[in-house]
Amino acid sequence: MNRAITLLTDFGNKDPFVSQMKGVILGINDEVQIVDITHEISRHHIREAAVTIGMSYEYFPPLTVHTCVVDPGVGSGRRPIIVAIDDHYFVGPDNGIFSYIFATHDIYQVIHVRADHYFVRKDSSTCHGRDIFSPVAAWLAKGVPLENFGDEIDDYINLNLPMPQRTSESNIEGEVIYIDNFGNAITNIALKDLGTISKHEILQRSKVLCKGSQIELKSYYSDVNDKALYALFNSNDMLELFVYRGSAVEANGIKIGDAVGIVV
Amino acid sequence: MNRAITLLTDFGNKDPFVSQMKGVILGINDEVQIVDITHEISRHHIREAAVTIGMSYEYFPPLTVHTCVVDPGVGSGRRPIIVAIDDHYFVGPDNGIFSYIFATHDIYQVIHVRADHYFVRKDSSTCHGRDIFSPVAAWLAKGVPLENFGDEIDDYINLNLPMPQRTSESNIEGEVIYIDNFGNAITNIALKDLGTISKHEILQRSKVLCKGSQIELKSYYSDVNDKALYALFNSNDMLELFVYRGSAVEANGIKIGDAVGIVV
Amino acid sequence: MNRAITLLTDFGNKDPFVSQMKGVILGINDEVQIVDITHEISRHHIREAAVTIGMSYEYFPPLTVHTCVVDPGVGSGRRPIIVAIDDHYFVGPDNGIFSYIFATHDIYQVIHVRADHYFVRKDSSTCHGRDIFSPVAAWLAKGVPLENFGDEIDDYINLNLPMPQRTSESNIEGEVIYIDNFGNAITNIALKDLGTISKHEILQRSKVLCKGSQIELKSYYSDVNDKALYALFNSNDMLELFVYRGSAVEANGIKIGDAVGIVV
Repeated sequence: MNRAITLLTDFGNKDPFVSQMKGVILGINDEVQIVDITHEISRHHIREAAVTIGMSYEYFPPLTVHTCVVDPGVGSGRRPIIVAIDDHYFVGPDNGIFSYIFATHDIYQVIHVRADHYFVRKDSSTCHGRDIFSPVAAWLAKGVPLENFGDEIDDYINLNLPMPQRTSESNIEGEVIYIDNFGNAITNIALKDLGTISKHEILQRSKVLCKGSQIELKSYYSDVNDKALYALFNSNDMLELFVYRGSAVEANGIKIGDAVGIVV
Repeated sequence: MNRAITLLTDFGNKDPFVSQMKGVILGINDEVQIVDITHEISRHHIREAAVTIGMSYEYFPPLTVHTCVVDPGVGSGRRPIIVAIDDHYFVGPDNGIFSYIFATHDIYQVIHVRADHYFVRKDSSTCHGRDIFSPVAAWLAKGVPLENFGDEIDDYINLNLPMPQRTSESNIEGEVIYIDNFGNAITNIALKDLGTISKHEILQRSKVLCKGSQIELKSYYSDVNDKALYALFNSNDMLELFVYRGSAVEANGIKIGDAVGIVV
Repeated sequence: MNRAITLLTDFGNKDPFVSQMKGVILGINDEVQIVDITHEISRHHIREAAVTIGMSYEYFPPLTVHTCVVDPGVGSGRRPIIVAIDDHYFVGPDNGIFSYIFATHDIYQVIHVRADHYFVRKDSSTCHGRDIFSPVAAWLAKGVPLENFGDEIDDYINLNLPMPQRTSESNIEGEVIYIDNFGNAITNIALKDLGTISKHEILQRSKVLCKGSQIELKSYYSDVNDKALYALFNSNDMLELFVYRGSAVEANGIKIGDAVGIVV
């Protein structure tokens, strides 16, 4: 089986640094499938990285290694870590970049990577993506056991990302956590946060609230044909605000962190 | 043999959605070579997608599966289809995105994909690229026979893309169909549309007409050294307007749809 | 073993031309790992390409084939070449794009590729990246011996890129050769240009000079917390100017070619 290694950084697509990470990986393990998640995380924006890997990792096959490098503290004392959940691994800096994984899993292990014989160079000053995280990901994907990299820690950084709150029997309050290329605003409210009620029934009777306005809930983008703001549960079963063939964000000034509620 | 799967979307390179498609593919078929054609099709621009895949598919090996997702009607009743020509497959929505393939082939099959056990989820509301088209492409590349996906249809959408017209014995009229990153304007007039006359003779005596001006025909970009507008037959044997080390589009206000003629 | 082929061009990420190169490669050799170094070299900027491949090639495994296409003279008489060093190959136009390789190696071979039966088409007018360089790279990665492609030449184009100069016992003068996405300015002064003195000692006593100002030398970006201009030796052991969590370039008007000196 060809294991997969994913890469997520704020390095951009112009500079050669991402390709250098891939070169290092292939030098260790030339049978992997390397997939870019994105290299356009806003510079140094750890929360955006945390949400993006959180939205994406589960679409990859079991035992995929996800390499995430948004790392303003590179070269300082901040630790390199591996986070292991049931069937995925995550490699990156201990700066909160895996907080979404922590928030959505009861069981996981965090390893402080100390086994520097797996590094390309031990005194790397500016590019741990290439010199530390990539080779660790490549060896992990090649089957080196987790315990060979270092010891488990429990004092890792957890940003405590905003999670939706049930404020009454029928009210859930969340917020916008991601805005996509089309201007759709994805919230942190998942269908499962609404309990055991069926999606059909939710669509019939629920009301969505944002910025003091009530927003109609639809099944698909193309259920409407005007340019008003609507909501739906997207293919990830997350509540999302949209304008059909337009931008929810541009037309309505919505931004990350804006409160969104749903009354079931 | 490692089959190839190509991806063409309007999802952009910042969001993680393209990578989620790749994750789904690798979960089904981890021996494929996945190649991005582009993810920067102008939003919802089905014609641009149709031209881009039409310009590109034939450079891939036989049995490549081309996954094309520009899909403003996602979630509505529009059908998922597979188009099969002699040695390539195309997977995407039935909205005209394969019209260039229809226009340039006499023999092809169009299958309405109904076998939803190949889908990642059947009730996907917003992301058929990941939930329907990617897994279908992965199974197809793994060798699942075409007939397993559904039945042939003949009422698919065909946009009837503009094709060059022979308006007299010696005149062919076409139009600009693609503008590249360098500002070159590619037309829909192919060398073969000029008949059996040799390229050498065409270069000697043909005149190109655009916006009321006559344009000289050259062999290579570097055959000239001024900044006037010239034409050549490019490496796809398509008539193309260019400014040497400049932009044909910027300097001359050329845009997609502009009429271009050639007098043989 | 799956060999790697890298691609570096000025084609951008929107057009399908890069994917066409990959299609051609996979048609010849479907077991390679294809890695994009960048496709956002500034248009026709041969020096930028020369520096970028020079910074990156050594992170790839032995026998990687690096395909570099920044080629304003495409279609003219300029020759296709292969450059071979000890354990890497480079394929591209003879226009100086491999000058950094020439400047940093004592021993290398330059082959004028004449064996046009390896080309996709011999009369390619506008896209040698796809029609000539990609197939040559694919055959080379498949094991075709170097001598099968053509004869060695010694009149290839060498741009004589600026190299750092030792202007006195204790002074080295160089210049900015690359500006990255974060606004860091990388110079051509390498740690090894400073002789056998230890990095520790250099950090203690060296002074960096740029634009009439003296700049402090640090170990890591996060060694500082103000917004002044600092310098460090980066993970490539190259002298680099930076502003912590800011842009050295924006704040200080630094550009490629600016003189930078170091007093050991």
